[in-house]
Formats: sequence, C-alpha cells, structure tokens
Amino acid sequence: MQVAYLLYDRFTALDITGPHEVLNSVPDVESVFVGEVAGPYRNESDTLSLVADRSLDEVTSPDILVVPGGFGTRSLLEHEPLLSWIRAVDETSTWTTSVCTGSLLLAAAGLLDGRRATTHWLARETLASLGAEPVTDRVVFDGKYVTAAGVSSGIDMALLLVTEIYGPEMAQAVQLGIEYDPQPPHDAGAPEKAPKEIVELVTAVFTANEVG
Amino acid sequence: MQVAYLLYDRFTALDITGPHEVLNSVPDVESVFVGEVAGPYRNESDTLSLVADRSLDEVTSPDILVVPGGFGTRSLLEHEPLLSWIRAVDETSTWTTSVCTGSLLLAAAGLLDGRRATTHWLARETLASLGAEPVTDRVVFDGKYVTAAGVSSGIDMALLLVTEIYGPEMAQAVQLGIEYDPQPPHDAGAPEKAPKEIVELVTAVFTANEVG
Repeated sequence: MQVAYLLYDRFTALDITGPHEVLNSVPDVESVFVGEVAGPYRNESDTLSLVADRSLDEVTSPDILVVPGGFGTRSLLEHEPLLSWIRAVDETSTWTTSVCTGSLLLAAAGLLDGRRATTHWLARETLASLGAEPVTDRVVFDGKYVTAAGVSSGIDMALLLVTEIYGPEMAQAVQLGIEYDPQPPHDAGAPEKAPKEIVELVTAVFTANEVG
Repeated sequence: MQVAYLLYDRFTALDITGPHEVLNSVPDVESVFVGEVAGPYRNESDTLSLVADRSLDEVTSPDILVVPGGFGTRSLLEHEPLLSWIRAVDETSTWTTSVCTGSLLLAAAGLLDGRRATTHWLARETLASLGAEPVTDRVVFDGKYVTAAGVSSGIDMALLLVTEIYGPEMAQAVQLGIEYDPQPPHDAGAPEKAPKEIVELVTAVFTANEVG
C-alpha cells in the first residue's frame, strides 16, 4: 500500500504531516513525499522545509493520494503539470484525498465535479466555484474521494481511512500509538462553535492573506 | 518571540509540526528549526525529511524551546553537544517544552529533576529513571517546563501555551484558523480508554521498536 503525499511551495505543514503520522503507523504502508521536482519545499509561512524525495514522474501509481492545502494552492489552479499528474494517478488510485484547500486542486483537476466535498471553512465558496458541492462535515467521503476540512482535520480523515481499509482495531491501535486523545482547551475549532468576534477576526486575517 | 524547534535523526514528525502549526499562527512568533548541524533530518520511520535551517550555535536564546520525541531520543541521552545546548538555551528561555519522548532529553539534560512531567504513555518508567516524576495528564506545567504526552498531544500543549502567553481569544482564533475541532472516529487515544487487547498489541509493537 503506497501513499503519496504531494508537496508544493506554500503548503501547510500540518495538513500533510497529520495524515502521514496516522497512515504511516500502519505496518504495510509505504509513504512517499513527492513534488514537481524532488527537493525541499517551503511551507506557506516560510518557516520550514519538507523534502520531496521523489519527483512526479517517479510516482505513477500510488494507492492513496494525499493533497494538502496551503496559500500556495491558488497559484496552482491552472498549473497543468501538477493537475495532469493528479488526474493521472487518480485513474489508478484506490483513494484520492485532500486536506484543507487541497480540495481546490482536486476540483481544479476536474475530479470533484458535482461531488460532495469539503475544505477549510473559509474556502467553501471557492470550492463551489470549481464545481464541487461544499459540505460542512469535517470529513466527506464521496466514492473514492475523501476530503477533509481545515488543517488539523487530516488526522481524523486518516483515522477514518484506516478504519475503512484495515478495520476499527487497526485504527484504535494507531490512535493509541499516537496518543490521539484530543483535549483542546477551548471549543472554538469550527465557525459554528467559536465566538462571533473570533470568527470575524479570523475571517479578516485569512481574507487578507488568502485562505490557507 | 522566537520559538526553536529541535530536530535530530529519528524524530517523530507530528510531535514537532503540531506545536509549530499552532504557535506559528500567532502573528509575532518567529519559528526556527534547528539541528546539531543545519540540513535535513530524517524521521523515525525514514519516510520524510524536515530541514534544520540553523545549527545549534546559531540559535542561542529562543524564548520557547520545543523538543519533539522519536525513537532517536534513546541514542542521545548521553550526547553532550545536544544536552549542553538544551541546558544553555534553557537558562534564558521563557518556556522549555517537549512532546512525547522529547521529555527524556530534557530529563537527561537534568532539567526535570524532581519535576512533574509527562511523556508517551509507554515511556513513563524511562522518564522516572531519568529523575522526573511522571504524571498521566496530557499536558503538564511545572514552572516554565511544559511537557506533553504522546505525539498528537503537542497540539493541545501549544494551544495551552498560547492561552497562557497571549490569552484565550488568541488561542481561540488560532484553533479556528487550523479548524481544530477534533472528531476521532474511536475513543482509544489513551491506555485507560482503549480496549485491553489494543493496549497489549501496541505495547508489544512499541516495545519491539523502542517507544517513539
């Protein structure tokens, strides 16, 4: 079982390292970090580099594709080398997945036309404009397409995938291994839960920066 | 406000990218990834490389130190170049923190003697043998020393730190920005919650590999 994690400039680190930590805990999974060219890719805030060990042409048939989000997605929505690769590996993938605004790239590649999908809560309109039907669930399955909401939701998505593929016992073992017993100190992780003024603040900040 | 993230061979990626995604969402925070020498460091499962942009001697006075865990900690418990640097930056840090078995390095540096601290649930005895007093809480504050339990707990630790330093509104804004509204499909993220046979399975696997 090979999982390909797509890197590009200005990705969001947790979008991709969250699912990786979960999926890679399963014994027979091979993880491959891939970019248009092999080498380091800088995250959206220019604070870290993750390395793509392989170039796109070296990874042709992953079983699972994970596309992270990040401010960098916007400049790639018409970038054919990347979109063509996504379309090509999707032809043979078992699961094609995204976290956060990674779904904008799947949609731009034409894979989410008319499909139920999610993204960061501030990017739902953009996702709709690319042909998908935005849903507010944290993780959305539509056939083999699995999309997750903002940033941290990729952890939950990956645990659902492990449950689906390997069964609940494997998912529980992975969850225990990474001690995923979340205890956030506040209950503000969704726009329906956060105080109105916090939602307005975050909307203003993200709109100024483009949505991650 | 500078946050230093320590890299070494065989670290656990989510241990460090979790806190980074949270702390780095705060506007005035500078994030620095640091290693004994600058360059890429491989994670414990040899599936990805994160890059240390600076060497230890280039980072001398971070306000916050974050030490991740990973199988690699065991071979560093007597590695003076790293332990000396941890001790040196701790002298002027505001907060000295760890995730998972990162606390073993803090303890080996002599910083947790007699202090309440936590680590991955499978490493509590090792932590005690290094002089700390293990606590089963997910995040433990003892003065300026903040330790988190296994892997994913660094996200909660970082949100608590943001709350402590910047107040609850900032923490809520960060939480909303990364859409941290966890919805794990199972309730098995702690040894007290997981089915007994799952605890035994994970214990056997981790004991064979050393605890991450």
